[in-house]
Formats: sequence, C-alpha cells, structure tokens
Amino acid sequence: MNKVRIGIVGLGRLGFIHAKNISSIIKNAELSAACSLNKEELSRAKKELNVGYCFSDFKEMINDSDLNAIVIVSPSANHCEQAIYALQKGLHVFCEKPLGITLQECLAVEEAVAANANQVFMLGFMRRYDPSYMYAKQKIDEGVLGKPILFRSYSVDPESAIDGALKYVEHSAGQFLDMAIHDIDLARWMLKAEPKSIFAIGGCYAHKEFAEHGDGDNVSALLQFDNESMAFFLAGRTATHGYNVETEIIGTKATLRIGSVPRKNMVEILDSHGVRQECSQSFQERFEVAFVNEMQEFVDCIIENKKPEIKAEDGTKSTNIAYLATKSFKENKLIKI
Amino acid sequence: MNKVRIGIVGLGRLGFIHAKNISSIIKNAELSAACSLNKEELSRAKKELNVGYCFSDFKEMINDSDLNAIVIVSPSANHCEQAIYALQKGLHVFCEKPLGITLQECLAVEEAVAANANQVFMLGFMRRYDPSYMYAKQKIDEGVLGKPILFRSYSVDPESAIDGALKYVEHSAGQFLDMAIHDIDLARWMLKAEPKSIFAIGGCYAHKEFAEHGDGDNVSALLQFDNESMAFFLAGRTATHGYNVETEIIGTKATLRIGSVPRKNMVEILDSHGVRQECSQSFQERFEVAFVNEMQEFVDCIIENKKPEIKAEDGTKSTNIAYLATKSFKENKLIKI
Amino acid sequence: MNKVRIGIVGLGRLGFIHAKNISSIIKNAELSAACSLNKEELSRAKKELNVGYCFSDFKEMINDSDLNAIVIVSPSANHCEQAIYALQKGLHVFCEKPLGITLQECLAVEEAVAANANQVFMLGFMRRYDPSYMYAKQKIDEGVLGKPILFRSYSVDPESAIDGALKYVEHSAGQFLDMAIHDIDLARWMLKAEPKSIFAIGGCYAHKEFAEHGDGDNVSALLQFDNESMAFFLAGRTATHGYNVETEIIGTKATLRIGSVPRKNMVEILDSHGVRQECSQSFQERFEVAFVNEMQEFVDCIIENKKPEIKAEDGTKSTNIAYLATKSFKENKLIKI
Amino acid sequence: MNKVRIGIVGLGRLGFIHAKNISSIIKNAELSAACSLNKEELSRAKKELNVGYCFSDFKEMINDSDLNAIVIVSPSANHCEQAIYALQKGLHVFCEKPLGITLQECLAVEEAVAANANQVFMLGFMRRYDPSYMYAKQKIDEGVLGKPILFRSYSVDPESAIDGALKYVEHSAGQFLDMAIHDIDLARWMLKAEPKSIFAIGGCYAHKEFAEHGDGDNVSALLQFDNESMAFFLAGRTATHGYNVETEIIGTKATLRIGSVPRKNMVEILDSHGVRQECSQSFQERFEVAFVNEMQEFVDCIIENKKPEIKAEDGTKSTNIAYLATKSFKENKLIKI
Repeated sequence: MNKVRIGIVGLGRLGFIHAKNISSIIKNAELSAACSLNKEELSRAKKELNVGYCFSDFKEMINDSDLNAIVIVSPSANHCEQAIYALQKGLHVFCEKPLGITLQECLAVEEAVAANANQVFMLGFMRRYDPSYMYAKQKIDEGVLGKPILFRSYSVDPESAIDGALKYVEHSAGQFLDMAIHDIDLARWMLKAEPKSIFAIGGCYAHKEFAEHGDGDNVSALLQFDNESMAFFLAGRTATHGYNVETEIIGTKATLRIGSVPRKNMVEILDSHGVRQECSQSFQERFEVAFVNEMQEFVDCIIENKKPEIKAEDGTKSTNIAYLATKSFKENKLIKI
Repeated sequence: MNKVRIGIVGLGRLGFIHAKNISSIIKNAELSAACSLNKEELSRAKKELNVGYCFSDFKEMINDSDLNAIVIVSPSANHCEQAIYALQKGLHVFCEKPLGITLQECLAVEEAVAANANQVFMLGFMRRYDPSYMYAKQKIDEGVLGKPILFRSYSVDPESAIDGALKYVEHSAGQFLDMAIHDIDLARWMLKAEPKSIFAIGGCYAHKEFAEHGDGDNVSALLQFDNESMAFFLAGRTATHGYNVETEIIGTKATLRIGSVPRKNMVEILDSHGVRQECSQSFQERFEVAFVNEMQEFVDCIIENKKPEIKAEDGTKSTNIAYLATKSFKENKLIKI
Repeated sequence: MNKVRIGIVGLGRLGFIHAKNISSIIKNAELSAACSLNKEELSRAKKELNVGYCFSDFKEMINDSDLNAIVIVSPSANHCEQAIYALQKGLHVFCEKPLGITLQECLAVEEAVAANANQVFMLGFMRRYDPSYMYAKQKIDEGVLGKPILFRSYSVDPESAIDGALKYVEHSAGQFLDMAIHDIDLARWMLKAEPKSIFAIGGCYAHKEFAEHGDGDNVSALLQFDNESMAFFLAGRTATHGYNVETEIIGTKATLRIGSVPRKNMVEILDSHGVRQECSQSFQERFEVAFVNEMQEFVDCIIENKKPEIKAEDGTKSTNIAYLATKSFKENKLIKI
Repeated sequence: MNKVRIGIVGLGRLGFIHAKNISSIIKNAELSAACSLNKEELSRAKKELNVGYCFSDFKEMINDSDLNAIVIVSPSANHCEQAIYALQKGLHVFCEKPLGITLQECLAVEEAVAANANQVFMLGFMRRYDPSYMYAKQKIDEGVLGKPILFRSYSVDPESAIDGALKYVEHSAGQFLDMAIHDIDLARWMLKAEPKSIFAIGGCYAHKEFAEHGDGDNVSALLQFDNESMAFFLAGRTATHGYNVETEIIGTKATLRIGSVPRKNMVEILDSHGVRQECSQSFQERFEVAFVNEMQEFVDCIIENKKPEIKAEDGTKSTNIAYLATKSFKENKLIKI
C-alpha cells in the first residue's frame, strides 16, 4: 500500500483538524470519506477539504467507501462500538481518547484488537507526539531524571471557552475523563508504573453548573504509583491566561518542566503590564504539531506494517484510573487499587 | 522603652542569624544575652557579636540578665517549655517554628500567652515577611486572585545539604513538621481557611535512612479546606538545583506564582548548558531579608505596644495540620477533621 | 496551473532542506529537477527525495526539464546570473539571500524582474515567515509599539559550528553580508525606513582566521534610519549556548522581544546547573517552520497569480546596507548615505 | 574612630535615601548634619531622621559641625567645588555621580584627593554594589566569560517619571552624563579597558522638549575599547514597563545578562495579559540594597583605614567618555580618542 484511504467519523473541532491534516499535510494518506450527523459540517468538509464521499451513517461509510482505515472523533459514547465494528470489517483504527466510558467496553475493544492482530489500532494521546513532551521523555529514558519522585500535571481550559464547556456539561464524563486522562496517560508513560492509591477532591469555584452534574469546575487528585512515585493532577475550566497544560517531573537527579509558561510563541511584550508572554488559547493551538505527528505515525504504521507505541490497553488503563479518580471525588474517599 | 534588651536561646545556623541581625541590623534592639549548650557557639557569639552575657542554662539567662524579650531558636522539643517560662517571667517572646511538637504543649503556650496578654508573643513564620510573599498576599487581599482554587507549595531542601539532614534525622519530627509547616502556615494565611481533609503519601527515593525513622525523603499531601479550596504540599530533601521553595495560588481571576524559579539573583548565564539561572542554595540565602523583617516586626510590636499578626494559635493550628499529615502518611489513610 | 514543477540549484545544507520541503510538505508543488556539482548530493536527492531529473549544469536543467519555477540555493556569487537566466526563460524564481554580492548585479536582477512582470520573483528572507516574527510584525502594524526607537538584532552562529564557518571563510562576503543581512531585512521591514548613517566595528575575539580575510568573528553596527529610529546589529560566530538569533524593538508604547532566550522547545531543566532551557543549535532547527512557510508562499503566489511581499529591491537594499557596514568596519569610519 | 560623624549636602530623592540609610541602617555611622536650600526637606530630615544640625549653607555645615565625613548629593554643578572644599578641610568625601561636569573640574578633584591621601574619597557608582552586578563581576574575574566581545547596557527611566525629567531638563547635562554614565562605569569596570572610538546617535521619539536642549529622549552609542571589545549603550526616558537597567556581557566562553527582565520581585502573575512579571519602577526600588552597600563600604573604609575600589579618576574617565558621547551625538560624527 502506498496511500492509505481514510474515513473519518466526527467533524467537530478536533474532527475537522484531523480531517484537514489528513487531506493536506499527512503523507501517504487521503481523506476518502467523512461521516457526521451535522450537515453543515459535512458540506464544509466537502467544500474545504475535497472529501469524496460524505455520510450521515457510520456503518454505511464503512461498507460503501473502500477504506483502509478509520479515524474516530465521534462523541466518547460511540468510540468503542465504532472501533470494534471497523476492526471487524478489517480496517485500521485511530480512535480519539477516551477509549471508552466504561471498563467493560474498553475491554471489548482490546479483544477486538487482539482478534485482528494484523490491523493497526492507535489511540489519540497526542501529547506523546508533542516535540516538547517527546524531548522530555527522551531525557527521562536517558536517565537524566534519576528515580521519579513526583509527577505533576495540569490540564486547565481557558475561562474564555467556558460557554462551550457548559453547553456540553451534561454529556461530559467529568473533568478526570475529559481532561485529566491526558495527564494520566503521560504519567503512566513517563513513570512506567501504575497507580495503587487515589484520592481526589475538587469543587465549583466559578461555575456552579458543574455541580449539578456531579462534577467540579476544578478537580485534583493525588496518586501513589506502584514504584512509589507520587502524582498530582489538576483538571479545570477556568484559566484566565489561556490553555494551561503543564507537566513537571521531579526526580532524584533533575527536574523537568514542560510548558510551565504556556507561551504562544517566542515573543515577549514589555509594556505597562510588565514583561509578559502571551499564552496558547486552545488545544488546537498548543498541540497543532502533535496532531500532525500522531496522525503521520498512524499512517506510517499502516504503510510500514508496524505497531504504534500507544495500545488499546493504554486506553483501558487510563480510562480506569480516570474513572476511579471520579469515584474518589464523588464519594470523598480514598481508593486503593 | 526605646531599646529592647533581647536574650537568645540557641545559636545554631538560624540562631546565629537571628543573633547577628539583632546585634547589627535590627533597630531599637540590642542582643544582651545568649544561651547555648555549645561552648564554641557561645564564644563565637561573644567574639563576633559582642554579646554581653553568655549562659549555658536557659533559666539562669532569664533570671540574671535584665531582659525585655527572648528569642527562642532551641531544638523544637524545648520551644514550649521555654516560651511558657519566659512569658511567666514577664518577657516578650519570639519563638521559632514549630510552636511545639504535641498539640497539648501548644495549647499550654496559648494559655500562657492569654494569661500574659500585655506581652508580645510572635512565631517565626518568616515567609510572611518575605517581600515576594508579602506582595502576593497584598494582591490577594486586593481581590486580584478571585476565589482561591488551588494552593500549591513546595519546600525542598537541596541535595547538597543532605548530610546535615541525615545527621539530624532521629531528632526530626518528620518532613511535614520540619519543612511543610511553613507551607501550611502560608496556606492558612492566604486562603483564610482551615483544612477539613488530608491525604498524604511519600517515600524514600534517594535516601533509605529516612524510612528507618518512619519518614520519607520526599512526602506530599492533598488537602481540602473548609472554603472548598484545595491545597497540595511537597516537602523534600533532594532538590539538585538548590533550595526550592515555591508557591502557586490559582484563583478564579488570576494565578500567582512565588519563586517558581528560585533564582539567586538577577544574573542569567548563557553557556553550553543553555540559558540558565543559578538558584538559592539555603534558607539563609533565600530568606535573608525575611529574617530581618520579622525580627524588626517583633521589636516594633514591643516598642509600639501592638500585637503581631502571627499568633500562638497559628502555631498550634499549623502544628496540628502537620501532625495529621504525618499520621496520614504513616498510616496510609485519609484523615477527615 | 495546479501543481508547480520546481527545479532546485544547490543541494547543500539549506538546499537540501528546501528540496525536501518541496518534495514532501509544500502543497501544489513537485520537485522535478535538481542541479548540483556535487554528485553525492545529487544521488542523495535522487534516493531520498525521488527527484526525477538530476543535472550538474544549471542551464541544461532550465532548458531540458519543463519547469515552472526555480529555487536558487547555489553559492552567493551565482545568484544573480542564475536568477536572470531563469527569469528570461520564463520561470518563476525563488532566490536565497543575498540577492547578489555587488550592487550592480542586484540592479540587473531588478531589471530582469521588471522585464518579466508576470513572473513571481521572491527572495529567501525566511524570518519574515517565522511565526514569532510574524506575530511581532502584526503587533507593530496594529500600533502596539508606538513610534520605534531602537531596533536591536543579533545573529550569532554557535561556536560548535565554527569548523564549517572557517572552511568557508575565504568564500564568505563577511559577517554583515552572510549573517546580519537577515537582521537588516527585518529592520527595514519592521521600521519601514532606510538607514542614513552607519558605523561598524568588530574584531577577532576567538578565531584569528577571520582577520586574514578582512573580517571579524564578531562585528556590530549602529545605524540611524531616515525616520530617526536607531538600529544595532551584532553578527558573530561564537555563541556557546546555541544559535542565537534575537530581536528587540523598543517603541514609545511598548517593547517587543523575539527569541531573547533562543529556547529549543518548552522543556525546562532544573539540575546542578540551575534552572535552564536548552537552545536551538542551528538555523535549520530554529527556522524549520519558516522555511516551509516561505516556500509555500512562493508556490501560492505562482498558483494564485499574486506577488510576494519580499521584492527584488528588498534584496538590493539589504545587500547595499550590508556592503556599507562591511566598508565601515574595514575602513573604521562613519558612513553617511 | 568607632563611629563616623557624617554630614550630607542635598536632600532630594537620592539625598534623602542616603540620609535615611546613614541614620538607620549603616553601621558605625551617624547622620550629624544636613544641608539643603530647601527648608521643607530640612525639616523633614530633622523630623524623620533626627538630624542634629541643619544648614542652608554648605561651608557653614563643614565648619560648624565637627564632622568626619561628607556625603555630596547636591546638583552636579556643585559636586567638584564641594568635594574639594571638604577634602581640604580634612573630611572624608563620598560624592554622587557625576564627579563633575567638565574635565577640568574633575582633574581638580583628583588633585585634591592626591593632596589629601589619608582621606577616603569615594564616588557613588552604586551599581558596583548591587548583588547581581557583583555576582556577574565575580564570574568575569573567575574567567567564566572568556574574552569579552560585546558589552551592552541600557539605562532607561520609566515613562511614568517623565514629568520630573522634563522639569529638570534645562539643568540636565544630557542623557549620556545623567543616565549612561553608570553603564560607562560598568563597562570600564567589567572590561578593564578604555574606549578608543565612539559614535552616538539618538532623537526625540516621544518628547520634543529634549531637542530644545540639544538632547534626545533616547540616545545610544557604539564604542570600541582598546582591548577591541565593543560596547553599546542605550539611555532613555520612555520605558513603559518600568525602570529598565539591564546589562549583557557577551564573551567567547559565555554570556552574562543582568536584569534582562527588571523584575520587581519573585512574583509571577498569570491573567488575561498572559504570564507576566511586574517591574521595578525607579532607581530607588531597583538599587535599594546597592545604596546601602556602597555607603557601608564608604564608612568601613574610613573606620578600617582602607581605600575604596572606585577612585576619583574613575569619575573623571567616565565623565569624559559621557562627554565625548554627547559631543558625537550633537555633532553627528565619529570620535576617535
């Protein structure tokens, strides 16, 4: 195969980014089909991205489009079902996080992946493909850090995006599954360990609406991993300076920080506000390159017949941890695994 | 009174700093007497600081020196007893943290303070007198932060000082009481709230010796306060870059960070290691100005007949929180207050 | 035209980057032919980039390859001649800086451009296409800066690359034409003005070899522009921390700094060297995105039949300023224009 | 002598700082007398600083006050005359910069200093006593920098202080003598060399009033020193972010930057303006510690019978360089020394 024919399901904010990358930047790939329930999104994709075939029904797209691979960017509740269907139809699958919203359905995907071992299955933990995170990971693998002591990671959306979050709140699985799951994946990746205890707290500091759905607008969790490393996560919706994704890994030999100032670019402004750096305002802006890199990796894996580093079980495990953190937060108790 | 006659007990690292400040920098004060069991320390104080009277017995110093005030920098186990004795003898008392090592003795100090209401009693939480912390506190009081969401504070001693820490380990009350108590005080001061739940973890990542005394070389705690704010503390002994005291307060309107790069000064070095800033290497270096400010405040309170902001009960409460964090860490359980 | 057929001349470090970008990233373009005197470079291009036609003679490539456009990355001395030849043959031309090495030949290119007004001619001042410089330029155009006071710009190559520079020294036109010409272009672009006086100095601080060719290893110049703005340039070869390209524009309302810490990425390292950020080590690393953006702009201009912002006369003027700075340095005198 | 009796002449902004430091912080010193033509200043000094004797006539103060030393903070035009008079009367002399406003009177002070070789004479180049500059100087002396290539130093007053500067403009000797003289002293101190050529330019970018007095609101100069090092100075009045004093010394082995972000303290603010650090707003704020350190050095020199590092000839030489820079600016020509 020298060109992967890809269909995408879901054309929302992130879906459109993936669609656009596939149709214009990703090498050895073409965007053959797109599926969405939203007609405007479909016609935009047709017009701007030249997608050949548009569908409102997922299975129809799978069956009628002569695809090699599928990219799933639909609502979280559909991920597992669609991934399994596509795997069974012989397609390679790229699935956005979270893998699923229950442990059971995640395990079902793992089974389908195992049953179709020649197909590529990859999960969209794009931070692993961000140049700065990759650089930090490489340093860790080289032993720069020594033994890891504390892994701290924040994912806080900008307050300026709060309307979108509030509109979506009843479909949300909560901050841990929506936001912190990326930090959880990073922790597992960088610490090479699994958590053994979790305690989570949080609250509604600015937006009471989240409480009505059993969530907070900011939540945090303290975990201990089975190699004794500690981890602290913060997930929230109210950053006034921008899209605040930052990570710190404190080790016995060094500490690494990624994005502690979530600077937009290399420009500094000196004016009446002081000396300042403007910040990234969205995941699209911060992880623009990472989204390209991960999709290229997916396509390369298909073409070169290799397996991606991120496996289905990474999705299951991260989902489970996020689920347990949510449970700890809701029940205000310590959870031992 | 236009000059406060001060006696100091304890002439170790911090004791000598206080003694030197009193004898040379603090206005309206003189260092009249010093007490230590260590003869070398005493003769150094006599020689370098011109202290008039030297004692090896605390009570003797109190009774024979015509003092107005006493500064307690002795081992933690002696704080309460000495403070009570001096209060009863009519002296103003400045006491280093922690106030005491059990709740009971802290409460006994509170009683003695109440019984001698005309005397000044002040606790050595010097960070409240550091210009940067003062500036942040002022911003918070002005409402810049909005509602506080997360208070994060680290106190990590440099790895280069590990020998001293190991030598002292059997007399240590643990990282939370030794190190994090400053962060706990800052949290209470800045959040204007008290914790309602605590979960602490930790371990020995570099130095197993701490485990033998039921401690870790790095420990952390997640707390929820009664105004719903969250707090995360890290206390440790293994920072390779220097003396890492940093604090972040995330609010609904802004975030403040104090010391996130614990820079030594305003010099940046560009060389084969990159662009870098060297760091403070000790509490003496980082809080040089704060130690002067707090002692001046103590003397000013005596002279101007006013009461310091930091009260005995601040010591009791911080000690109690540090004690509960230690208990949570040791018993690996969630503590609700 | 929906795909521009491009031939490239010169396959050195930068030539290969352009060739690779055209063959893999640039939309609506294909790398049809390549020309180099170096057989290894040619066979590498053939193998890695799938270039169809390879030539060792420039004119042969032009005449035998059915090209729409040519990208000139040959030695500076060949730029003008090749550009003029290609323009006369009806090709669109992208030419690396400097436009030429004498004023006369630059003016000859201008003439050829004017005589072939329907063809695109673009000069490779890639910094104008770097996201951070673009962002700063936009701020300036919005009036954020007020009236410009001082434009300061450094271009200092890493000491680690000195061997390459020394090998090339006898073909070099000097630091101002080789390095500072980019800063000169930025100054003209951002200040929207032309210099009226120039004074340049410099020396060999680490590498005497440059003196033998009438150059320094670090040189600087102070200029006043016709809108009274001042400009200060530093060009050098001896940065120990990396590839130091930075710019500061001080205005009456604000100051903008671009790249004052030439950080490689968003990772900070805290270790025994302090808190540090590693730096970009080469122009390829720092301007990776800019090289893509400028080439895409060239291709877009051809396809959309529009003219690029950077014109031949920008090359002439920058070359002339760099030439006068060199003259001032060599003759140790003030030059008024 | 164990307490130096000091008289001060001049009680303006800086005069009052020196007076206050002497009366409250400086060890082994007392502020015995003060002289000013401004009655309000005198009565403030009497009230707030407990100065014993107040004078409106300088010579009267010298003759009637039993002083050991004099601190001169009067207008620049009076410095030399007062210094010489006090030296001849047997007093130690601390003199604010500039030493004088003509080369002749500077030389006359040098003579008086030489004729009274047992008395201490010290010039107020306080930056040499700033902890960050001291640290950088120490690094340079240790050889960290290698051979110096470029010394760049800015002294830009905040726009917020422009009214004061405009009121004082007709008494000002120009930006180079008023502002850049500190940078000039730093360059001589750090480079251990003297300039051999100077070219200066500038203009009125925001405030035309300076032009009426033959000055600019921002001026700059490029110098070459006799060890081939280059120096670039910027002096101005229009910084919108605060009091911008920064210095960079680029060497063959490393680069040092002092104050490139003129941060007020260790607090960072993250809000809708980005991630920002507020800046020092005045020389009083930035150099608070340096003013104490230099005065203590003066007193220590008197008590310990030693000579300060900064000599009268440092004042003469810096004044002369500032004068030549002014001349270059006014006459728009290159000056070779």
